[in-house]
Amino acid sequence: MSLTVVGSVAFDALETPFGKRDKILGGAATHFGLSASFFTQVNAVGVVGGDFGDEEWAVFKRHNINTDDIQIVPDGKTFFWKGRYEYDMNVAHTLDTQLNVFETFAPKLSENSKSAKFLFLANILPALQKQVRQQVPDAEFVALDTMNLWLEIMKDDVIETIKMVDCIIINDAEARQLTEEPNLHKAAKKIMDYGLRAVVIKRGEYGATLFTKDGYFAVPAYPLESVFDPTGAGDTFAGGFMGYLAAHKEVTDATLRRAMVYGSVMASFNVEKFGTERVDALDYPEINERFKAFKTMTHFDDIPFERATTA
Amino acid sequence: MSLTVVGSVAFDALETPFGKRDKILGGAATHFGLSASFFTQVNAVGVVGGDFGDEEWAVFKRHNINTDDIQIVPDGKTFFWKGRYEYDMNVAHTLDTQLNVFETFAPKLSENSKSAKFLFLANILPALQKQVRQQVPDAEFVALDTMNLWLEIMKDDVIETIKMVDCIIINDAEARQLTEEPNLHKAAKKIMDYGLRAVVIKRGEYGATLFTKDGYFAVPAYPLESVFDPTGAGDTFAGGFMGYLAAHKEVTDATLRRAMVYGSVMASFNVEKFGTERVDALDYPEINERFKAFKTMTHFDDIPFERATTA
Repeated sequence: MSLTVVGSVAFDALETPFGKRDKILGGAATHFGLSASFFTQVNAVGVVGGDFGDEEWAVFKRHNINTDDIQIVPDGKTFFWKGRYEYDMNVAHTLDTQLNVFETFAPKLSENSKSAKFLFLANILPALQKQVRQQVPDAEFVALDTMNLWLEIMKDDVIETIKMVDCIIINDAEARQLTEEPNLHKAAKKIMDYGLRAVVIKRGEYGATLFTKDGYFAVPAYPLESVFDPTGAGDTFAGGFMGYLAAHKEVTDATLRRAMVYGSVMASFNVEKFGTERVDALDYPEINERFKAFKTMTHFDDIPFERATTA
Repeated sequence: MSLTVVGSVAFDALETPFGKRDKILGGAATHFGLSASFFTQVNAVGVVGGDFGDEEWAVFKRHNINTDDIQIVPDGKTFFWKGRYEYDMNVAHTLDTQLNVFETFAPKLSENSKSAKFLFLANILPALQKQVRQQVPDAEFVALDTMNLWLEIMKDDVIETIKMVDCIIINDAEARQLTEEPNLHKAAKKIMDYGLRAVVIKRGEYGATLFTKDGYFAVPAYPLESVFDPTGAGDTFAGGFMGYLAAHKEVTDATLRRAMVYGSVMASFNVEKFGTERVDALDYPEINERFKAFKTMTHFDDIPFERATTA
């Protein structure tokens, strides 16, 4: 089933201890869409400026992403973010943010995008997320991301929007900030109480956890010896997660769990090179090989201890 | 097979946001021994003062721990540690440390303790760990713990001792400090190069990871809504890990993985009450029920994604 994503399409300038790029394709909808495209058909909704070139469009085309709803403002400039990472890749230092055409972004969904059964509201203004949610009334499974800034200045709006979706995909600091609850498990329960089916909490190098009504699932991060560029890892995770779900008839506990693993698989590739470079070049055997690696690194035999028979 | 542990036996004074205790049984050998005693026969090697009373000895007796090698210094006082935890339970604030009889601790192993096939060198001076290791030449599997202080002031001694054992069980900060390598996976590889069979890295609320020559295994922490007192969690983990291994004929990749889970199970109980209170009162059905919970919370079906057949 098709999947619509609404979010930023951007140019990023990045500095990491391993190198730098002055202007590469980025943005939440980009990373999400690319990742999800390996699993299902993706419609991207966003806005770019006249500086968005053939090379950038080609990335979307290569992955069969429908870009009809990416508005082009010919005399505007594409959203630009400049960031630096130190050796501690968990922390991004923002050097520059130019919203440009993104500042007045008013998502318009075509009939095609509106008919999607799966919808991801990437991190944009809560009011815009809400407006998009209302344009896709028949969606079967809707997830959203948010950010610390909205939680700081308009938490009520964020909560109102959360109540209109099925799933939230945020990081641990955001979960704590949203609920003012330091314990992650209590925080997740509080968020579930907004009426969600699933709460996904991303924990960077420590993996990710899924809370549902009856269950708890934890998946570690893939053991990478070097993280090259973490930009977009969270959106790439969400893309793998939502894309995998959209590829299946029903959202069940079992598909949610495998979606968590495929999300982790995609995120682990994303950080291996700058920007979209690695995911852009992925193939299915690589993806499934890493899925298998996740199984291997988490498996243990379900043999309860019996003192009498051992010793 | 029997298991010998050398380490501190102590009184702790603890303050957490949930309550306080002025003088309760603690120490690495205590927490380790109690935890391991559910899986195998344990010999404890340590030293206490004349203030160590019937109530304390009774805890060891209840779990059939051999205390013949716990020396008693009648006119001395038992090692005393006072600590406080804030809501962030990952950080212990030491308020007072009185080494007392522990300051001149010279471990003496009886023939019984020396004949153990499994040996755990809890966090004591590296030179003492080395000396104990040499007293148990026929041990089949020896593990050690250490601490930031020794890594700071006598790293060479720590490394020399590591080279004499099969396994190290430390936390992530210690692994980074030991190797001066921020990436945990690179750090683990560097430690493996000292000739170890296994490197176990404890990550508190994020679980624990096992590195072996050919494999990597990660287990999350049990999702606790409240951590009451984290004191001794690491030693309780090590006790479950080593005790489980000692209960089996051979140390294999499969038993190491299950040992990681049983270590995590025991640690998850330890933090639910003050000091040894919870583990002291455990029974096998509880232990195996939580083991099963770890299986449930990490399991996913090993079904590779095939785009053609889904959609």
